[in-house]
Amino acid sequence: MYRIDDTHDASLTSWVESANAPATDFPIQNLPIGMFRRAGSAEGFRPGVAIGDQVVDLLAAADAGVLPDDVVAALRACAPGQLNAFMAQGRGVRVGLRRALSQALRQGSAQQARLQPCLVAQSAVELAVPCRIDGYTDFYTGIHHATSVGKLFRPDNPLMPNYKWVPIGYHGRTSSIGVSGQSFHRPQGQIKGAADVPEFGPCRRLDYELELGAFVGPGNPLGRPVPMAEAEEHLFGLVLLNDWSARDLQAWEYQPLGPFLAKNFATTISPWIVTMEALEPFRAPFVRAEGEPQPLPYLDGAENRERGALDLELEVWLQTAAMREAGLPPERLMRSNFKDAAYWTLAQMLAHHTINGCNLQPGDLLGTGTQSGPSPEQGGSLLELTAGGKQELRLSNGETRTFLRDGDTVVLRAHAERPGFRRIGFGDCAGTVLPAVPLSP
Amino acid sequence: MYRIDDTHDASLTSWVESANAPATDFPIQNLPIGMFRRAGSAEGFRPGVAIGDQVVDLLAAADAGVLPDDVVAALRACAPGQLNAFMAQGRGVRVGLRRALSQALRQGSAQQARLQPCLVAQSAVELAVPCRIDGYTDFYTGIHHATSVGKLFRPDNPLMPNYKWVPIGYHGRTSSIGVSGQSFHRPQGQIKGAADVPEFGPCRRLDYELELGAFVGPGNPLGRPVPMAEAEEHLFGLVLLNDWSARDLQAWEYQPLGPFLAKNFATTISPWIVTMEALEPFRAPFVRAEGEPQPLPYLDGAENRERGALDLELEVWLQTAAMREAGLPPERLMRSNFKDAAYWTLAQMLAHHTINGCNLQPGDLLGTGTQSGPSPEQGGSLLELTAGGKQELRLSNGETRTFLRDGDTVVLRAHAERPGFRRIGFGDCAGTVLPAVPLSP
Repeated sequence: MYRIDDTHDASLTSWVESANAPATDFPIQNLPIGMFRRAGSAEGFRPGVAIGDQVVDLLAAADAGVLPDDVVAALRACAPGQLNAFMAQGRGVRVGLRRALSQALRQGSAQQARLQPCLVAQSAVELAVPCRIDGYTDFYTGIHHATSVGKLFRPDNPLMPNYKWVPIGYHGRTSSIGVSGQSFHRPQGQIKGAADVPEFGPCRRLDYELELGAFVGPGNPLGRPVPMAEAEEHLFGLVLLNDWSARDLQAWEYQPLGPFLAKNFATTISPWIVTMEALEPFRAPFVRAEGEPQPLPYLDGAENRERGALDLELEVWLQTAAMREAGLPPERLMRSNFKDAAYWTLAQMLAHHTINGCNLQPGDLLGTGTQSGPSPEQGGSLLELTAGGKQELRLSNGETRTFLRDGDTVVLRAHAERPGFRRIGFGDCAGTVLPAVPLSP
Repeated sequence: MYRIDDTHDASLTSWVESANAPATDFPIQNLPIGMFRRAGSAEGFRPGVAIGDQVVDLLAAADAGVLPDDVVAALRACAPGQLNAFMAQGRGVRVGLRRALSQALRQGSAQQARLQPCLVAQSAVELAVPCRIDGYTDFYTGIHHATSVGKLFRPDNPLMPNYKWVPIGYHGRTSSIGVSGQSFHRPQGQIKGAADVPEFGPCRRLDYELELGAFVGPGNPLGRPVPMAEAEEHLFGLVLLNDWSARDLQAWEYQPLGPFLAKNFATTISPWIVTMEALEPFRAPFVRAEGEPQPLPYLDGAENRERGALDLELEVWLQTAAMREAGLPPERLMRSNFKDAAYWTLAQMLAHHTINGCNLQPGDLLGTGTQSGPSPEQGGSLLELTAGGKQELRLSNGETRTFLRDGDTVVLRAHAERPGFRRIGFGDCAGTVLPAVPLSP
């Protein structure tokens, strides 16, 4: 088990000045990992770590002799654009990278001269989905979301009897996962019409969903469940995840086998994976409220009860085309906290996924489901904020929304803060809606 | 559009004598493609074509100068064990391979001496999942299955109002897909108990599902739907697919987001991909019965109406441990025909999957859903053959089954025949149930 160490010391500062700015998401205590290349170049994406407004080129840092041998070997084993070989190594190598960079980036480090040439400005790079995602599973751990949405789809039966026993999940589509900055065309499809005869056309109820995504580190062999006591060792780190949703397609198609075309046209993640180590100071107890059923033994564990939850502030921001044209910044639509929103922990999601013998692989992505807070204004989707499209949301520039319009950019943000520790953030997870494309004849 | 040509001539015979046996699945008119290596070797899997009881080593055939240049280039572009680069090329290259091998393998071919050394006995090889499967989608096109199963899960509402409009599908798990010969441990998980409190334990209602799987050839870019008129050009070929299902896990977990742990512990496919070209003589019109709703325009097309269906006989066989010990062969449990069982065609599945802009990739796998025939004894799963476990199935050796027991081997088979054409088959898709593994403490 990994615990807080000197890499979390709030007094640490870096010789990369921008990392010391109070508002940065990427102080020296964070050190999230991603895949980057110089903007406009055709070279392969390479592993990097964000620090302030810079990226540490990890292969260059390896060449410069700043990283331990096992970290270098794991980085060099990665195929271009794919962090999977590094992710497969597990916590030891990840901690090795964290400690080495924390030392080398500190104010006054003797390694500054060697590492300085390995920095690239974030403004000069493009970022990619950081690994080959072989499997993407989306869970449904947001109990306030499940209850609100359940009411809209099934007024008499909002929360299914299984919800408080089973970490409900389903398989998502990997091919349409993109990184922050993704834009996609409004999906088209079947929409329920009168008398159960569908109409065809562009989605009229296009929505976002505020989620976190957990990347799997080491996998497990087929037929070998991961017990709760080991589940944390299989987690690599977290990103933000926007599970774009076409509500009208979903309402018509989802029975009996779940969402399909309503979701698989696009999913956007943030580019920087915040490691489980960086999140260590923000762990929280996982306690079921009085009267709630206790988890079955395979979903229970001492570590999970003690520190299975995470205290993470989550936010959704919207910038419409009109705001962009008027030079207005995005406007915040809501905020919630992961520890109040999720009925199941990341460890429980992972243990449940494997309990039947299903094998996970390094780089697999586990979505948490929409993380709405307990009160109505904390809905993690427009479906919730507008009561199923019935109450318009008024924006500060006078515009209104029930669902997303073409040109809208949705930005998800997250950060963690706690007295005595440095605030860390996730960076933006932004995506933009483009108009539907007319079908070819 | 590809049509019947001289490679389908029923009078063709091969100098590979076993390919001329009436009972072979792999006459010279078939030429299915798979990935093989010598049994017990550690070498990478390489592309091969089945002929009688032999495999043509395609890279060796390329070296021997038997194949056209574009076919050789596509084969050499394949990563070890992954046919994807070849699949991406589309029909032209696939037809080139078919024509070259049909010529070279014919009785009296001048190329016999060159090709002979490229043959390996099937008894001396092991076979693999033929490509990297980045996406696996399982459809639900078997209308008799959907109706029978719907009655068990939802007596009042067996077929949802969307069924005759939407080719229902959901995303499956790729990591647990194995090839014929796969064995897997009985899954464990939550099973509904009294008063909606679940029990935990090994699955008690383990089942198979008889499906076909279609491999995607060329993909489509994100945001660009494949119109019906082009859908066939994106299909590579077919395998058998056993969608193993844990019915008790499924009944408890599946609402509201569909099957998850009930399915993702194992999926077995047959190793030889029967190409769309080999299936050409067995195409059939796709006609909606009187009174059925007509497909929406994006799911309709002249070619689909004229020849979108496939006349394929499907079978399920069972060999219990007791049969194996007594030296008894597998026993046939049912047969059905794809053209009578499927409410939607392969082209409609593919067009629907992309209509919202979702991108498909070479090597993606599309399951058809369980292909039960119209009468009760044609159920494609034990759930159907035993009326939800209520009527025992009596086997000829005196054993009975409601659901699968440890040691049971299920074999799926398929073949196509039509007067004037040579019968072709798919080979076996076999999988065996192992006992549940006790959880680690």
